[in-house]
Amino acid sequence: MITSTANQQVKNLVQLKKKAKARREQGVFLVEGLKMFLEAPEDQVEQIYVSPSFLEKHEETVRGRKYEILGENVFEHVSDTQTPQGILCVVRQPVYSMEDLGGSGKPCVLVLEGIQDPGNLGTMFRSGEGAGITGIIMDKATVDIFNPKTIRSTMGSIYRVPFIQTENLREAVLALKETGTRVYAAHLMGTCSYDEGDYTSGCAFLIGNEGNGLTEETAALADVPVRIPMEGRLESLNAAVAASILMYEANRQRRKQDVSVMGKRI
Amino acid sequence: MITSTANQQVKNLVQLKKKAKARREQGVFLVEGLKMFLEAPEDQVEQIYVSPSFLEKHEETVRGRKYEILGENVFEHVSDTQTPQGILCVVRQPVYSMEDLGGSGKPCVLVLEGIQDPGNLGTMFRSGEGAGITGIIMDKATVDIFNPKTIRSTMGSIYRVPFIQTENLREAVLALKETGTRVYAAHLMGTCSYDEGDYTSGCAFLIGNEGNGLTEETAALADVPVRIPMEGRLESLNAAVAASILMYEANRQRRKQDVSVMGKRI
Repeated sequence: MITSTANQQVKNLVQLKKKAKARREQGVFLVEGLKMFLEAPEDQVEQIYVSPSFLEKHEETVRGRKYEILGENVFEHVSDTQTPQGILCVVRQPVYSMEDLGGSGKPCVLVLEGIQDPGNLGTMFRSGEGAGITGIIMDKATVDIFNPKTIRSTMGSIYRVPFIQTENLREAVLALKETGTRVYAAHLMGTCSYDEGDYTSGCAFLIGNEGNGLTEETAALADVPVRIPMEGRLESLNAAVAASILMYEANRQRRKQDVSVMGKRI
Repeated sequence: MITSTANQQVKNLVQLKKKAKARREQGVFLVEGLKMFLEAPEDQVEQIYVSPSFLEKHEETVRGRKYEILGENVFEHVSDTQTPQGILCVVRQPVYSMEDLGGSGKPCVLVLEGIQDPGNLGTMFRSGEGAGITGIIMDKATVDIFNPKTIRSTMGSIYRVPFIQTENLREAVLALKETGTRVYAAHLMGTCSYDEGDYTSGCAFLIGNEGNGLTEETAALADVPVRIPMEGRLESLNAAVAASILMYEANRQRRKQDVSVMGKRI
């Protein structure tokens, strides 16, 4: 059992918790909690740490796996949560290519520019999995996807939604367009309402920074700027909510299309 | 200028920031920031506090109003944000009745049970205003709407969306039903998909706690349990996202209906 916070492994865990640079250099990230541990692809889990009290209650979940025990205080020291569940792993960062984002047929891609809130980013992954999108592209100005708070708010979607973080968002969007994906920008000045777009074929949604929206250059890449109508005196929606409404409109249209195709077959 | 944190007014501001009980007893809440100040209904603002640096830059925004200056340190002490904008007000809590929640015609009401996250609650107000809902009902187990973090995430919708917090959620839902409002429960076991409901007449959406969803008793009050389809291995959506998707589906259906009614007139 490791009982000192001066231990090298412990020091490294704290670095991985706090620093995007450390995560990037080592190509790993931290996940905490039983659910996030159970859903982690086994071959990507590099290290497992548990607290004595966790082990007492849930020994069966780590039986047969290689793990290290951290004293309760040490565990609290490395944990990013206020009431740690007592299990934490170091997971290898998945590496995807642009091809992985297209799914097996009609792509539905979320493209993010300058998202600042870790919770918003994680929530977009979560809604994205639910809506069945095929991938996410983020620019370098978007908060680190491997931030512990982001990972937590993905609720496991981080393992299942392919994504890339790109130095050149423009190029990535142009590459999408070249493959026939129609690009929609969420924009307050959108010329048509979001539910007037046809998302039954390959599509991508551009979502901008929480405070400022998309940059003009990025918005200009879109085939169609769409807006989500707003009543009252509201200036904008939460970025994760806006993204979720768009992705679920695509999901709704695609489900309806599937039903009507099935209907025709009968 | 108040320069001591021992000042009675300052002590009270800290109480109002931290304690739901103090806010309830005094019937007020705090709002911070220029935007939240500018949107506050003038007759509900009871006190205005500014920092010297705010006054230097934005004196015109409080000109002609009665305000108090807090020293920079004192302002930071009472502020709930890490980088205070330098303006904070005490605002009287609005008081609504059930009748206020119905709007002027077809009600669209959000009913919340046990929402725990202040940001989620505020985001639901924000999306609710955007989607044009007519009111929000919360049970007592839902986090205090006047919590500073909740107020901040409403982005001003707190001033414009009528709401009540009730001791008896069951009674409130039954009262809605008596007026002909159709009640839909967001439920993982929903028998139909959310986009199969007809929200063009009076409707209400029941949304439950982030971790556990609706209690059985509350879910049983619904006319129809609806689910938001989820692909992948996702167990649930973020509560604010789920609420927003439902409210915007109602908005979408009502807009389409308006267009078709207008079409017929021509």
